[in-house]
Amino acid sequence: MKINERFLELKDSYLFAKVGQKTSEYKLKHPEKKVIRLSIGDVTRPLAPCVIKAMQKAVSDMSKKETFKGYGPDRFCYGYDALIDSIKGSYLKKGVKLESEEVFISDGAKSDLGNILDLFSEENTVLVPDPVYPVYVDTNVMGGRKIVYADATEKNGFLPMPDKKVKADIIYICSPNNPTGAAYTREQLKAWVEYALKENAVILYDAAYEYFIEDSALARSIFEVEGARECAIEFCSFSKTAGFTGVRCGYTIVPKELIRGGASLSRLWARRQSTKFNGVSYISQMGAAAVFTEEGEREIRENIAYYKKNAGTVARCLDKLNIFYTGGKNSPYLWLKCPRGMDSWEFFDYLLENANVVGTPGSGFGKNGDGFFRLTAFGDADETVEACERIERLLK
Amino acid sequence: MKINERFLELKDSYLFAKVGQKTSEYKLKHPEKKVIRLSIGDVTRPLAPCVIKAMQKAVSDMSKKETFKGYGPDRFCYGYDALIDSIKGSYLKKGVKLESEEVFISDGAKSDLGNILDLFSEENTVLVPDPVYPVYVDTNVMGGRKIVYADATEKNGFLPMPDKKVKADIIYICSPNNPTGAAYTREQLKAWVEYALKENAVILYDAAYEYFIEDSALARSIFEVEGARECAIEFCSFSKTAGFTGVRCGYTIVPKELIRGGASLSRLWARRQSTKFNGVSYISQMGAAAVFTEEGEREIRENIAYYKKNAGTVARCLDKLNIFYTGGKNSPYLWLKCPRGMDSWEFFDYLLENANVVGTPGSGFGKNGDGFFRLTAFGDADETVEACERIERLLK
Repeated sequence: MKINERFLELKDSYLFAKVGQKTSEYKLKHPEKKVIRLSIGDVTRPLAPCVIKAMQKAVSDMSKKETFKGYGPDRFCYGYDALIDSIKGSYLKKGVKLESEEVFISDGAKSDLGNILDLFSEENTVLVPDPVYPVYVDTNVMGGRKIVYADATEKNGFLPMPDKKVKADIIYICSPNNPTGAAYTREQLKAWVEYALKENAVILYDAAYEYFIEDSALARSIFEVEGARECAIEFCSFSKTAGFTGVRCGYTIVPKELIRGGASLSRLWARRQSTKFNGVSYISQMGAAAVFTEEGEREIRENIAYYKKNAGTVARCLDKLNIFYTGGKNSPYLWLKCPRGMDSWEFFDYLLENANVVGTPGSGFGKNGDGFFRLTAFGDADETVEACERIERLLK
Repeated sequence: MKINERFLELKDSYLFAKVGQKTSEYKLKHPEKKVIRLSIGDVTRPLAPCVIKAMQKAVSDMSKKETFKGYGPDRFCYGYDALIDSIKGSYLKKGVKLESEEVFISDGAKSDLGNILDLFSEENTVLVPDPVYPVYVDTNVMGGRKIVYADATEKNGFLPMPDKKVKADIIYICSPNNPTGAAYTREQLKAWVEYALKENAVILYDAAYEYFIEDSALARSIFEVEGARECAIEFCSFSKTAGFTGVRCGYTIVPKELIRGGASLSRLWARRQSTKFNGVSYISQMGAAAVFTEEGEREIRENIAYYKKNAGTVARCLDKLNIFYTGGKNSPYLWLKCPRGMDSWEFFDYLLENANVVGTPGSGFGKNGDGFFRLTAFGDADETVEACERIERLLK
């Protein structure tokens, strides 16, 4: 019996689990302190009223034989038409026409981002931005793949562009980026699409934060770019769009034109999911289907405006302290340089102990995160204001 | 870019997807026919009232800031204490004491049965019963592992026992078995545990149907057997126990004593899940937490009695027709020999076209399923009676 020894190559623990653990330990030691978390990307606003209504109806459906739902429909890997259609409608507004067979309902982008790798041989080189969401690196370490990095630094505005000297088979793009908040324009994405087509590579495009985009020059879907259908898979989630972190629903778009090794990736994904997955809760799908209605969009935009106000609060605080930062405009994350030359975990501890505020150390996202720090806009508005006042007092 | 070419070694499509497809095609061609499905293992009874109540409260919690829930708690891979504790309580009744760190809340046994393979090298030999739930074979074909089979036939009462001439690293046991309905006694499982300990193998024990067991000599959990903690992982689901096929919740028990290659499998699984999964819906977990209460157990036992009555209906029909079958007693499945020497898919088509009843061809579960057929007890009682009347008329 041989375990997958690559697990032993992983860093001790998943970044956010470590942040959570240190926070819990501090709170246990100091129960009298009011610790404010601007760390994990977890939402705090309740679900939109029309989503609640849809979910209550769905629960009620499950109480009666006539309306009870078991496994989701076979036809589109357990996705309900109502939800798939609403997603197609939302893409149409972005000028992207999808077919139902290309829309795969997931229990969140994170699961699908990890599980999509089942479709790819170990013998692929993976190109990952640095810094970025640690899942892309960790899942490929588990999978034994070679990883190369595309540096995102102040110099390139945290938006790496293709380097033709670099060969890559799987390319991760997260736009707006977690943790930097930087987002690509359509023209910039076109360069990546051309690179991917030339390399016969596949772009894994993480669009988890696209709903935060304000600037109309920025792409909301990679499929707005011509040629993307032949080289990209897009991962979307209701987590940040609609506050579904505790509801679990997302969608992965695998275009029918995406063929590699003579195989249709959408058919391979359908095979993988029908074999290793049993679909998303009916209640979650019905809640999600309410999101892209007129009422739903209005209600979630209110929540997003709330978070953007928090981002503004943090931004102004950092401005006052003359701390360099990026993000917060088209993204719920602010990416700042640690003050006083501290390194990331040093600043994490300093902030937790002296201001009782929790953020996420930038080094957890990659080597280019050393000396950087991430703060999120997802918290309570008053707590965010209070956290910023404490930070200002501590660092002025 | 290299795809995972092992996908090309898979049979054309996942068995149940194929059954679903042929059924849909027939229904499209014959919209006037009333097709009765005794095929897929999908439940039809609505959720228990106390589960509905818990889920309605959970939805209501999500509508208010004070009670809103985002990501599940970090501590036990997103599992809520209320649910984990209820599961521990239910194990205690079976004489098995678990720790919270060993209980991993899943979105269903199927996902975890597939994903657990991430922990194991490709260089392991997998021992699978034949016939059995196709997922065990398909997921290992995807993973490139060598598969050997333990024959389950009339000769051994469909309960294969260890063969010391066979070397295996990963051993699948499904008890009660899908599709045969055969279930192991504790003594028989002890032989498997001893074999696994000798081989330094890991048993993947699928207990999805344990709630159907009536016979007290049969094990409901592998952990009732001494030594199992050192060699087994148990996969459980609320799907069949509580009708959660559309709610998506289960639990996987990875004992802390399970060490292979110097690594704790429960810590590896925690790492895998915290990296490639984001937990189960709060609503689903709260519904699940209501299942193992006194009220919940009473209500789900009513539903299970309903299904067992269906099993009895099918059993009597087969008795009348003098068709050999097994199962239906401690299991919701009946495993019958196809009449008139038909092979499995022949009988599938014959039954669908001439009685408008859908079952599952035994050959889809393995070579020992050739000439066999599976019928399920999960349907509507009246429809099950009607289906049996049609089968009787057709085959007498």
